[in-house]
Amino acid sequence: MQGQAQQQAYDRGITIFSPDGRLYQVEYAREAVKRGTASIGVRTPEGVVLAADKRSRSPLMEPTSVEKIHKSDDHIGIASAGHVADARQLIDFARRQSQVNRLRYGEPIGIETLTKEVTDHIQQYTQVGGARPFGVALLIGGVENGTPRLYETDPSGTPYEWKAVSIGADRGDLQDYLEENFRDDLTLDEGIGLALRAIASTNDDQLEDGGVDVATISTETEAFVELENDEISEYIAENDLEPSDEDETDESAE
Amino acid sequence: MQGQAQQQAYDRGITIFSPDGRLYQVEYAREAVKRGTASIGVRTPEGVVLAADKRSRSPLMEPTSVEKIHKSDDHIGIASAGHVADARQLIDFARRQSQVNRLRYGEPIGIETLTKEVTDHIQQYTQVGGARPFGVALLIGGVENGTPRLYETDPSGTPYEWKAVSIGADRGDLQDYLEENFRDDLTLDEGIGLALRAIASTNDDQLEDGGVDVATISTETEAFVELENDEISEYIAENDLEPSDEDETDESAE
Amino acid sequence: MQGQAQQQAYDRGITIFSPDGRLYQVEYAREAVKRGTASIGVRTPEGVVLAADKRSRSPLMEPTSVEKIHKSDDHIGIASAGHVADARQLIDFARRQSQVNRLRYGEPIGIETLTKEVTDHIQQYTQVGGARPFGVALLIGGVENGTPRLYETDPSGTPYEWKAVSIGADRGDLQDYLEENFRDDLTLDEGIGLALRAIASTNDDQLEDGGVDVATISTETEAFVELENDEISEYIAENDLEPSDEDETDESAE
Amino acid sequence: MQGQAQQQAYDRGITIFSPDGRLYQVEYAREAVKRGTASIGVRTPEGVVLAADKRSRSPLMEPTSVEKIHKSDDHIGIASAGHVADARQLIDFARRQSQVNRLRYGEPIGIETLTKEVTDHIQQYTQVGGARPFGVALLIGGVENGTPRLYETDPSGTPYEWKAVSIGADRGDLQDYLEENFRDDLTLDEGIGLALRAIASTNDDQLEDGGVDVATISTETEAFVELENDEISEYIAENDLEPSDEDETDESAE
Amino acid sequence: MQGQAQQQAYDRGITIFSPDGRLYQVEYAREAVKRGTASIGVRTPEGVVLAADKRSRSPLMEPTSVEKIHKSDDHIGIASAGHVADARQLIDFARRQSQVNRLRYGEPIGIETLTKEVTDHIQQYTQVGGARPFGVALLIGGVENGTPRLYETDPSGTPYEWKAVSIGADRGDLQDYLEENFRDDLTLDEGIGLALRAIASTNDDQLEDGGVDVATISTETEAFVELENDEISEYIAENDLEPSDEDETDESAE
Amino acid sequence: MQGQAQQQAYDRGITIFSPDGRLYQVEYAREAVKRGTASIGVRTPEGVVLAADKRSRSPLMEPTSVEKIHKSDDHIGIASAGHVADARQLIDFARRQSQVNRLRYGEPIGIETLTKEVTDHIQQYTQVGGARPFGVALLIGGVENGTPRLYETDPSGTPYEWKAVSIGADRGDLQDYLEENFRDDLTLDEGIGLALRAIASTNDDQLEDGGVDVATISTETEAFVELENDEISEYIAENDLEPSDEDETDESAE
Amino acid sequence: MQGQAQQQAYDRGITIFSPDGRLYQVEYAREAVKRGTASIGVRTPEGVVLAADKRSRSPLMEPTSVEKIHKSDDHIGIASAGHVADARQLIDFARRQSQVNRLRYGEPIGIETLTKEVTDHIQQYTQVGGARPFGVALLIGGVENGTPRLYETDPSGTPYEWKAVSIGADRGDLQDYLEENFRDDLTLDEGIGLALRAIASTNDDQLEDGGVDVATISTETEAFVELENDEISEYIAENDLEPSDEDETDESAE
Repeated sequence: MQGQAQQQAYDRGITIFSPDGRLYQVEYAREAVKRGTASIGVRTPEGVVLAADKRSRSPLMEPTSVEKIHKSDDHIGIASAGHVADARQLIDFARRQSQVNRLRYGEPIGIETLTKEVTDHIQQYTQVGGARPFGVALLIGGVENGTPRLYETDPSGTPYEWKAVSIGADRGDLQDYLEENFRDDLTLDEGIGLALRAIASTNDDQLEDGGVDVATISTETEAFVELENDEISEYIAENDLEPSDEDETDESAE
Repeated sequence: MQGQAQQQAYDRGITIFSPDGRLYQVEYAREAVKRGTASIGVRTPEGVVLAADKRSRSPLMEPTSVEKIHKSDDHIGIASAGHVADARQLIDFARRQSQVNRLRYGEPIGIETLTKEVTDHIQQYTQVGGARPFGVALLIGGVENGTPRLYETDPSGTPYEWKAVSIGADRGDLQDYLEENFRDDLTLDEGIGLALRAIASTNDDQLEDGGVDVATISTETEAFVELENDEISEYIAENDLEPSDEDETDESAE
Repeated sequence: MQGQAQQQAYDRGITIFSPDGRLYQVEYAREAVKRGTASIGVRTPEGVVLAADKRSRSPLMEPTSVEKIHKSDDHIGIASAGHVADARQLIDFARRQSQVNRLRYGEPIGIETLTKEVTDHIQQYTQVGGARPFGVALLIGGVENGTPRLYETDPSGTPYEWKAVSIGADRGDLQDYLEENFRDDLTLDEGIGLALRAIASTNDDQLEDGGVDVATISTETEAFVELENDEISEYIAENDLEPSDEDETDESAE
Repeated sequence: MQGQAQQQAYDRGITIFSPDGRLYQVEYAREAVKRGTASIGVRTPEGVVLAADKRSRSPLMEPTSVEKIHKSDDHIGIASAGHVADARQLIDFARRQSQVNRLRYGEPIGIETLTKEVTDHIQQYTQVGGARPFGVALLIGGVENGTPRLYETDPSGTPYEWKAVSIGADRGDLQDYLEENFRDDLTLDEGIGLALRAIASTNDDQLEDGGVDVATISTETEAFVELENDEISEYIAENDLEPSDEDETDESAE
Repeated sequence: MQGQAQQQAYDRGITIFSPDGRLYQVEYAREAVKRGTASIGVRTPEGVVLAADKRSRSPLMEPTSVEKIHKSDDHIGIASAGHVADARQLIDFARRQSQVNRLRYGEPIGIETLTKEVTDHIQQYTQVGGARPFGVALLIGGVENGTPRLYETDPSGTPYEWKAVSIGADRGDLQDYLEENFRDDLTLDEGIGLALRAIASTNDDQLEDGGVDVATISTETEAFVELENDEISEYIAENDLEPSDEDETDESAE
Repeated sequence: MQGQAQQQAYDRGITIFSPDGRLYQVEYAREAVKRGTASIGVRTPEGVVLAADKRSRSPLMEPTSVEKIHKSDDHIGIASAGHVADARQLIDFARRQSQVNRLRYGEPIGIETLTKEVTDHIQQYTQVGGARPFGVALLIGGVENGTPRLYETDPSGTPYEWKAVSIGADRGDLQDYLEENFRDDLTLDEGIGLALRAIASTNDDQLEDGGVDVATISTETEAFVELENDEISEYIAENDLEPSDEDETDESAE
Repeated sequence: MQGQAQQQAYDRGITIFSPDGRLYQVEYAREAVKRGTASIGVRTPEGVVLAADKRSRSPLMEPTSVEKIHKSDDHIGIASAGHVADARQLIDFARRQSQVNRLRYGEPIGIETLTKEVTDHIQQYTQVGGARPFGVALLIGGVENGTPRLYETDPSGTPYEWKAVSIGADRGDLQDYLEENFRDDLTLDEGIGLALRAIASTNDDQLEDGGVDVATISTETEAFVELENDEISEYIAENDLEPSDEDETDESAE
C-alpha cells in the first residue's frame, strides 16, 4: 500500500521522473501496447514477414476494418500493436517522411532512417508537456539495397533491430516461441509459417479464417505485398492451424 | 473502494494513461455515447441504411429539431449518438473535408478517406492537452464507385467498418439483434425494416410516429435521401411497430 | 456522501467527462440558467412571441435596464435567461453574425443558420480549456420566408426547435402550463396572452406593471417589434393578471 | 462545515460554476466592492449627481489623492467603489473608448453605449482563464441629447440603469435611505443634498470637511463639473451635516 | 485553526479574491514591504525630502551598495522599501517612462502622471496570472511647475499623495511621529531634520554614519540632489542623533 | 515517513528547489542514468577510448541495434548511459552543432566547445517549465589540435573533464577500478584493455561476444574509429575476459 | 509541525509570497548556493582578487574542469558558488552583455552596469511563472577607470558592493574571518594571501594543490589574469597552507 501510494505520486500529469528514475507514463503506455493483440515480424534472407493477429470481435464487423499492417512506402511495411488511433498517427507520420525523402533526395528512404525519424517523434511526446506518450508499438520492416531489415519502436521512442520479434499481447510467450523456432536460414515461406504458428501458439494452435493479416517485403522484389485471404488460408492449412473457435478482445486496442 | 480510489487518480485533467494502459477520459466519453439514444446502420448490396431513434421529449418540441442523421455530401450520410453539440462539430468538420476534396481533386471524397480524416481529428483531442475528447460516435455511410460502405467512429478516434452496427444506448442488445437478423442479401427495403425492428426491439417492439429518422444511400443512385414521415410510417406499419407510449431521455445527449 | 465526493471530483477545472459520461460544468451552467427569471417563446401561425419576466428589484432601478429581449436583426429577436453578462456576449455575437450574413450574401440570415452559429460558438466553451461555459440559455425567434421559427440554445451548445418553450426559473411548471394550453392555431394575440398567463402562473396569476417585456415577429411584417408598456398593460388587463405584490431575485441572473 | 467545505471547492483557480450555478470569484469581487467606502448617484431632471465618501485616513494624506470621481468625457463622470487600482484600469478603459468614439464618429459617446463597452470588458475577466475579475463597481453618469442617464456596472459585467443608487459599503442601508427620500422632481441642488445626507446617514448624520467629493453633469450644460471644497462645505452646512469626528477604513479599497 | 485553514485556501497560485473580497498575495506583498527598512518622504513649500534608513549589515559592505533612493529624472526622485530586486524593476520602468515623455512631448513628465503609469504597471501584476505582485512600495517625489509633490505607490497599484509619509518597517510608529511633528510651513532644512529624527526615533534617537541616505528636490531648482555623507553628518549632529550601535536586518529586503 | 512525505512535496511537476536547495527531478534523472548499463571513457596520450557495455537482452535482437557509441564528428565520439531515446536527442543536437561549426567557421568544433553547447541545452530543461530533464549522461571524447580530451555531461547540465570515467550502472565500483588501474602513460591499446577489464569487473571478469562496443579517437589520426567485432574479440582474449553467461537489464535504459 | 505545514504551503509551484512576505523558492535557491564550495572576493587599492575553493572529488577528474572563475571581459572576472549549470547560464549572459556594450558604445562595460544587467535578468526568474530562480551566487570583480569594484549577486537578483566577501559554503565563518583580517590598505599580494587563508580556515588551515583557483584584475593593468598552478603553490607555501588531506562534496554544486 505504501509502495503503491508512492508510485501513484509520480505517474500523473506531465511525464516526469520517479525517484528511481522511471517514467511511469511511458511504462503505462507500454501496458496499452500489451492490451492489443500481437503482431509479429520475422526477418529471413529472402525478405521480411509481418503478421498480425486480428481476431474479429463481431461477425458483422468487416475483417479488413481491423488494420494492423500498413504500407509505408513501396519497400516498407509497418505492423502495429496497441492503441489503434495512435498507430494511425504514427503511420501517417511515417508515410509523410517516406514521401519527403523521395522528393528531397530522389530515392527511397532507408529502413533505419525512417525508424529513427519515427522514434524521435515518439520521444518528443515523452519529454515535452501538454501531451501524452503514444500507446502503440510498431514493427517497421523493409528491404534496403538488397538487405532485409526489421525494427521495433516502443512508447519511449527507442529503436531496436530484430531477427524476429513480437509486440502486443503475450509478448513473453511469443518471444520464447520465436527464440526456440527461429533459424537464420529460413525461406520466406518458412518465415510466414513461423509467424503464423507463433500467433496460433497462444490460441490452442489454431487460426480462424480472416483472423490474421500477413505481408511480405521480399529481398528480390523489394516490394511490400499483402497476402490474399486464400493465400493465408493455404498457409494455415499447410501448418495445421485450422480454427475451431473465436475470442473477444478490448475494442480500441489491437 | 480501494480500486475505485485508484481509478479516480487517472481519469482527471488531461488525458493520460492509467497503470493498466487505459485512457479513462476516452472511456468516459464512450459513456456519453451510451447516454444518447441509438443510431443504427445497415449495409445491403442495394445501399446503406441509417436509422436513428429520436423519441421526442416534449409534445411542443419540433421532432425535426432532434437532428441525428445528417447529409455530409451528395453520396454520404452521417448518423450520430451521444453529445449533440459535439456531433455537430464533427459533422461540420466532415462537410468541410468533403467540400475540400471536391475542390482539390474534382471528385467526391471516398467513404474510407472521409472516415479516417474524421478519426484523425478525433484522436488529436485524446492526446494533446487543453481539450476533452469528443463525447459522440458516428456512423458514416455512403456509396463509392458502386460499392456501399458503412463505418463507425468512436471517441478514441478508431475507425471500424461494419455490415450492420448500432451506436448509443443499448448497444449490446441491439448488436445481438442485428447479428441474429442480418443477412448479406438484404434488399434496401429489408434493411430499413431490420433497422426499424432493431430500434423497436428495445421499446416493446413499438415505434412512435416521428420517433425515428431514416435515410438511405442507394447503390444505384449514390444519393443521400431522407425518408419522409409518411414513408417511415408505412415501414412502421409494414413491420407491425405501431407505437403505444413514449419516453423521456437526457436532454443534451441523443 | 460517497456519491457526493465522487461527483465533486469531476466538476472542477476544465470541462471534462465524469465516469458516467456527464460534463458537470455544463450541468452547473444550466443551474445558472435556472437562477434567472423565466423567458417564454410561443410560435403561432401569425408569428413568434417572446416574453420575459423582469420583476424589478428596486423601485429606483429603471425597468428598461433589465434587458431580457433583444433585437438581433430586423426579423429576429432573442430572449435570454440566466447570467446577464454572458447573455450580452452571445447577443453581440448573434448580431455580428446577422450583419456578416447581410454583407456577405446580401440577404437576411436564416433563423436556423443563426441558431447553429450561436450553438457552435457555445460548444467551443465546453470543449476547449481556459474558459468556462456560458451560463445562459437563449430563445431565438423570427420569421424566415414567411415561416415563423422558434429555437432554444442551452449551455451545452445544443439547438432545439419548439412550438412553445420556457427557459429559466420554474421551467418544469411553465413547460407543463404551455403543454396544457398551447394550440397550433393560436392567433398572435392569443400567443401573447398565453405567454403572459404562463409567466403569471408562477406568481399567483398576477403580473406587475413593467414586470414583463414582450416582443413579436409577425409572419406578415417579418419585423421585430417590442410592445409598449401600455400595450402590455392592456394584455395584462385582458387576461386578468393585474398585480398585487412584488418579489426580489438574485441580482446578476435574470 | 459540510456546506462550507463544498463551497470552498468551487471558488478557487479560474472562475468556474458551482453546482448551484454561481460564480464564486465574481461574488467575492462583490465583497471587495463592499469593502470600499460608498459612492452615490442621483438622477434628477436637471442633471446627474455623483457623490463619494472619501473620509481620509491620515491628516497627512492629501484628500485629493483619494480619487473616487473621475471625468470620463466632457459629458460623463464615473464614480467608483472597491479596489482602487482596479477602478483606475476601468476608468482608463472608459476614457479610451470615449476618445475612440469621438475620433471614429465625430460625436460624444452615448452613456449607455459606454456603459456596455465597459461591462463587456468586465465580463471577459469572468469567463476567460488567466486573470481575476475586477473588484470594483462603477457609477457612470452623464447627459445625452438633453437626457440625464445614470448606470451602474458590477463585477459580473452586468449594466443597470438607476434613478438613484449606492455602491460600496452599507449599500443596503443607503439604498433604503434613497428609496425613502428620492423624488422624481428633485432639483440638481436637492439631488446634491440627498446624496450628501445619504452618505452622512451612515455616519451619525455628519460629514467632515474634505470627506466627500461631489460632481454634477447638468442637463443644461451637459458638462462634467467637480464641486470646489467650499461649495461642498456650503451644501454640508445647508443640510446640517457639520462633522464631529473621523474614521479609519481599509487602505486599498475605497 | 479553522480560520487559518480557510485563509490558506485563497492565498496561493494566481492572485484571486478570498470570500471576504481580499487579495492575499497583494497583502503578503505588503508584508514584504514591511520587512524592509523604512524610507520617508516630507513635502515642504521649499521642496521634497526623501530619506532612507540603510543601516549596513556588514562593515565590509559598501554603504553605497544599499541603494534606496534613485534619480528617476532631473526633477524626480524615488525612494523604495521592500524587495530590492523588485524595486529596481519599477525604478527602471519609471526612468523609461520619464525618457519617453521627454521624447514624445518635449517636456519633463508630471509627478502624478509618472506615479499613475507606475501604479498601472503594478496593478497588472495583481490581476493577470503567471506572475506575482511587486513586493515593494515607492515614494515618488518631485517638483512640477514650481509645486512640490509627494506620492506613494503600494503593491496593489494604488497611488496616494502625502504631505509626509513613511514606507517599510515601523510604518505605524513613524507615521505617528510624522503626524505629531509635521508642520505645513517647514523649511527644506527643517524637513530634512524631521525625516532624520523620524528614522532615528525607532533606533534610540541615534543615526549611524552612512546609515541613512537623503535626497532633495527643491522648489527653486527643481533638481534632484543627493546629499553628500558629510552634509548628512552635519544634519545628524545638528539634530543630536550621533550613533552608538548598529543592527542586522533581512538581506534581500531593504 | 515524515522525511519521505516532505521530500515528495518538492519532486513533482516542474523542476523547483527543495528547502535544502536540491532539484529532485534532476536527481531522479541521475537515477535513470544509473538504470542503464555502463559506458567508460579512458584518455591516454595516444588518444581517447570509449567503451560501452551492451549485453544484449535477447538472442534475436541485433547487437548493433543497441547503439551506445555514436560518431558526432570526424574527430569526436559520444558514448551514453541511461534513457536511450533521450540520448538520441542529445546526440542529434551534438551532430547539428558540429555541422554548424564547420559551416560557420570552416573548422572542426572544439571538444570543450561542443560539450558546453550540449550542457547548456541540457540545463534549459532543468530550469524552464513544460518539460522534464534529460535522463541520460554522455561521454564526449575527441582530439583537438593534437590533444585528447574526454568530457562527461550529467542531467543537471554540468560538464566535467576526466582522465578516465564511468557513467551508468555500477559507477561507484567502476570508478574505484579505474582509479586503481589508470596510469597517465597508458598506450591506446592499454587504454582499451583497461576499459574492457573495468566493464568485465562487474561481471565476474567476463565479457560476452558482441556484448561490448569500443571506439577510439587516436591522437595521430584525430579520427573516430569503431572497432570491428573480431578486433574486440582479440582484446577480450588478450585480457582473459572470455564470457561464460549473460544478463538481462531494463529495456529502455542502456 | 504546524509551522512546517504552513511553510510548505507557500514554497511550491511558481514563486509567490508567503504570509510573512517571503519568497521561499528564492530562499531555497540560496540554500543551493550554500551547497557549493566557497568563492571569495577581496578588493584592494591595487586591484580585485577572486579565489575559489575547488577541492576536486576524484583523482581522475581534471582540476581545470571545475570552473568556478570565469573571464567575462578583458577587465572583469566572475567567480561563482552554487549550481554549476546555472552559473554557466549567467556567465554566458554576462559575456554577451559585455560584448554588446563594446559594440554599441565602443567602450568596455562598467562593473556596476554589468552587475545590474545580470541582477535584472535574475529577478525576472523570481517574478514571472514558468521557470525556477537561478541557484547560484556570483562575485563580479573588475577595474573601471582605475577604480577596483567588487559586486555580489544573489538568487533574488539583488546587487551588493563589497570590500571583501564570501559566497557559498561556510559564508558565516568566512565572512567573520574576512571582517577580522581585512584592511583597506592591503596590497594585491596580501589580498591573495587573505583569500587563500580564509578558504584554508575552514579546512584546518590547509589548501591542497590544485584545490583552489585564483584570478586578479589589477588596478594598473585593468586586465583579468588567472594565476598559474605554481604561482598559487608559492602563495600557499608563503602562507603556510600546505595540504594534508582531501574532501568530497556534492557533485552538481560547487
